[in-house]
Amino acid sequence: MEASKIDFIPGGTVTSPQGFRAGATYAGIKKKAEHSLDLGILFSEEPCASAALFTTNRIKSAPIVLCQERLQKGRAVALVVNSGCANIFTGEQGLADAAEMADLAAQGIGASPEDILVASTGVTGQPLPMKLIRAGISQIALANDGGQELAKAILTTDTVPKETAVAVRASDIKFTIGGIAKGSGMIHPDLATMFCFLTTDAAVELAFLRSALRKAVDVSFNMISVDGDTSPSDMVLIMANGLVGNEPISPGSRQADTFQQALDRVCIYLARAIARDGEGATKLIEVTVNGAISAAEARLAARTVVSSSLVKAAVHGADPNWGRIIVAAGRSGVEVVESNIDLHIGDVSVVKGGRPLPFSEQSVVRVLKQSEVPITLHLNLGTASATAWGCDLSEEYVTINSQYMT
Amino acid sequence: MEASKIDFIPGGTVTSPQGFRAGATYAGIKKKAEHSLDLGILFSEEPCASAALFTTNRIKSAPIVLCQERLQKGRAVALVVNSGCANIFTGEQGLADAAEMADLAAQGIGASPEDILVASTGVTGQPLPMKLIRAGISQIALANDGGQELAKAILTTDTVPKETAVAVRASDIKFTIGGIAKGSGMIHPDLATMFCFLTTDAAVELAFLRSALRKAVDVSFNMISVDGDTSPSDMVLIMANGLVGNEPISPGSRQADTFQQALDRVCIYLARAIARDGEGATKLIEVTVNGAISAAEARLAARTVVSSSLVKAAVHGADPNWGRIIVAAGRSGVEVVESNIDLHIGDVSVVKGGRPLPFSEQSVVRVLKQSEVPITLHLNLGTASATAWGCDLSEEYVTINSQYMT
Repeated sequence: MEASKIDFIPGGTVTSPQGFRAGATYAGIKKKAEHSLDLGILFSEEPCASAALFTTNRIKSAPIVLCQERLQKGRAVALVVNSGCANIFTGEQGLADAAEMADLAAQGIGASPEDILVASTGVTGQPLPMKLIRAGISQIALANDGGQELAKAILTTDTVPKETAVAVRASDIKFTIGGIAKGSGMIHPDLATMFCFLTTDAAVELAFLRSALRKAVDVSFNMISVDGDTSPSDMVLIMANGLVGNEPISPGSRQADTFQQALDRVCIYLARAIARDGEGATKLIEVTVNGAISAAEARLAARTVVSSSLVKAAVHGADPNWGRIIVAAGRSGVEVVESNIDLHIGDVSVVKGGRPLPFSEQSVVRVLKQSEVPITLHLNLGTASATAWGCDLSEEYVTINSQYMT
Repeated sequence: MEASKIDFIPGGTVTSPQGFRAGATYAGIKKKAEHSLDLGILFSEEPCASAALFTTNRIKSAPIVLCQERLQKGRAVALVVNSGCANIFTGEQGLADAAEMADLAAQGIGASPEDILVASTGVTGQPLPMKLIRAGISQIALANDGGQELAKAILTTDTVPKETAVAVRASDIKFTIGGIAKGSGMIHPDLATMFCFLTTDAAVELAFLRSALRKAVDVSFNMISVDGDTSPSDMVLIMANGLVGNEPISPGSRQADTFQQALDRVCIYLARAIARDGEGATKLIEVTVNGAISAAEARLAARTVVSSSLVKAAVHGADPNWGRIIVAAGRSGVEVVESNIDLHIGDVSVVKGGRPLPFSEQSVVRVLKQSEVPITLHLNLGTASATAWGCDLSEEYVTINSQYMT
């Protein structure tokens, strides 16, 4: 068997896989036209096996309610998405508006409304400006290279679009997985929803697609510090149109592992991009916990450290305050034995066997001033590991979030 | 039966109850002599029934380990406490240093070392400067009005001392409960431990004292947003010396309810003082959740809302972003039905039956600009209520915490 190969595609995006088209327009929903586009469509020439994970917030946006229902059958053809208004806390009118958005998109592309998904992000508690949306949808032109426009149309407080794709060679087939995402990291802002829309031209069995997406999200989007403040609109969607013509990938397939690995890489790439672009963020923090007694404990410890406001603030100021890392792990609730702990900040060993080592403060400060700050905590109690990503906490974060509506 | 009466004592502190003395000195442990005092003793003329609650962090300071062991017998005579160095992550040497601190205090006051408790707050991972502590302890003069000095000696990033006392008249006895606290609110900084030391001259049965303290802490210190980032040194201590000469208060006593009520009031007063003095805070936020299906759910929802960085930032900027309050409640995990929700910000009704009401933005902004911001969320699902306290999130918080060590 030929070894599988996974390569990132330069300029890759959600329309890199065969048979996907996208387009976007500025409909005027965003008051400040920060990113100029605010309404877009993602379309597949062939109906897709489709799976998604949704917010766990008890308050759900109208589009989430619609998508949860429509994806029970595991099939979708297109997604229509807007930024500027989240259609959250909008009652019956919100549900009707979401359904109308899908109907309008369905007419434009000649599909059944039941195969259209909807996503919205932006301000809470205000009705969708349907007049603008009706006019806007008819303006959208779909193109094979339209992914980059769509990546811009879903942004809110994000400063950069987030998109990627990988070319995969597995056994006897070649396929592509692409994706775009939005989100402003840090503690996840409720008004700046996290989206990720993934596509692939591989044929994938629905049950396997659902399980692969769950696994990929567990090592990517569920490991960034945006996880704390779950938005009512959070959504990670994958659409597989099968245009490659392969035998559908299933748990028994030769390509199953490769597909999972490729999907993980795309999701981790986009999750890191979200963390790095956190509101007010100036750097990416990567926390790896090794030697935990279970995977669940490794994940919890890594997420707790990367979510700690005190750790984030110390990294922001390049303050070599390593005690905060250990204290955050200690309060996470996982098994921790002080005398077993080793801690590395970048390549600098600062704690060994529970005792602080003499280290040059300047060498730690140098690591903390990097654009990516790796922190590795060895609990030395078991064999489980996990990695989480986050960003620093800056004064700018507070400024952004104390002036959102006014 | 005569009605009981609970009155706050102007200038009341931890030495207001009979038979308690305190004193403090500047030993030089704090490098910057912000509050000038950094080492102190609290002493009771008579041995006390004593109970305490400690941090739940898996990493515990050496003084916490010592106090947990000594308080198993429920008896204490004095407490010696320093700020500037927390004696955390200091191994065997830390335990020996904590024991020596107790020994030194015991010699000075002529008590058994086993009856002396120890507390430390400040920097993590550095050994106690025992030379300074040995010299300092001998300088401490105990006085009946020494509580105010002790309240200053335990501060770190706090901007004001926190102290109070109540005079209680219950059935046929009069007694006093006093207390001091430290802590810098917000997310609880691991290097700015939360302490509360309480005293009373009432005689209280040990088992009842323990249960009363647990109940009081549950409605006070466990309901402030400092709860999130538990320090390895957190400690709430009560000492009851019985000098009033009453029959010890027990669950069956006529005074039991009054004692609980008085203790709750002292703890809530001090907890609010900690929240209000949060690092960088400019105002106190009070979140009340009504109509939850259980007390646990009411508590969780109130704590989640008051801990939300987005809610805190919005209050800081007087941004009338009420959606964040509802979204935080939604992600707390408690039962929430959108169409049942009512929300008040101060006296302004902003949501009724799950629908936003037309309200004057200026009237909400006016509430958000107050030094105390009351938020009331009615879930209208059950009968349980809870109140939590926190503070706003300011740029200053980030600045303080990105430059702690450097």
